[in-house]
Amino acid sequence: MPDLIHDTASAAHFSDEKLCKTSLHESAHMFCDIYGLRPGQAQKVHAHAGSDKIYHVLTGTAEVILGDQTHSLTPGHTAIAPAGVDHGVRNASAEPSTLLVVMAPHPAFDG
Amino acid sequence: MPDLIHDTASAAHFSDEKLCKTSLHESAHMFCDIYGLRPGQAQKVHAHAGSDKIYHVLTGTAEVILGDQTHSLTPGHTAIAPAGVDHGVRNASAEPSTLLVVMAPHPAFDG
Repeated sequence: MPDLIHDTASAAHFSDEKLCKTSLHESAHMFCDIYGLRPGQAQKVHAHAGSDKIYHVLTGTAEVILGDQTHSLTPGHTAIAPAGVDHGVRNASAEPSTLLVVMAPHPAFDG
Repeated sequence: MPDLIHDTASAAHFSDEKLCKTSLHESAHMFCDIYGLRPGQAQKVHAHAGSDKIYHVLTGTAEVILGDQTHSLTPGHTAIAPAGVDHGVRNASAEPSTLLVVMAPHPAFDG
C-alpha cells in the first residue's frame, strides 16, 4: 500500500526504553502518530497552549489523563485534549497497548 | 463518561438518506467526526486547499479514494489525504461501516 495508507496493526512499534512514536503523517497542519506502549510506559502529563490532541485506543488498555481525571480506555475509545488541557497517557496494564494520536496544528513542524 | 471521552462503537449514527456525521470535537484547530455509512452511501470526491484529512476505519469496509486510486480498507486501516489531494469515501459493501475522521485545520469553524 502507498505511503498514504497504513495498517495500524502492523505499523506500531515498541521500544524497551520508552513509549515509541511511529509517524504516519506530518505537516504544519497536524501530525498523526501511532504510540506503542509496553506495560509501565507513559507520556507525562503536559499541555499545549495552541494545539488540540486526540488519543484513539487501537489495542490494549490505556489510561488517559485529562485535567485531573484518569480514564481507563479500551479499543474504540477516543479522548479529546483541547488546547490548554493537561493530558497524558500510561499503560498500567500487563499487555502492550497502541493508540492513534492526532495533534493539530503540529506544535513543531520543521518542513 | 465526560464529553471529552467517547466510545466510537456507540457514538456512531446512521441515516437512511445519506452518510451521517457525528461530531466528537471541533475547534478552529480541527474537527473530529465519526462517519456512519450504510451500504451504497458515499462522500463525493473533493479536495481542501488548506487542510489535511485522516480517515481511520472503525468497523466494516470502506473504499477510500485518494487521487486516482481507490483503496478497500478494513478496521485499523488509516488513510491520509494531505491538503490539495482529491479524496472521498464510499461503502460498496453489504454491511454498515464507520470511520473516525479528523481534519485540520477546521475548514469552516464558526466558534
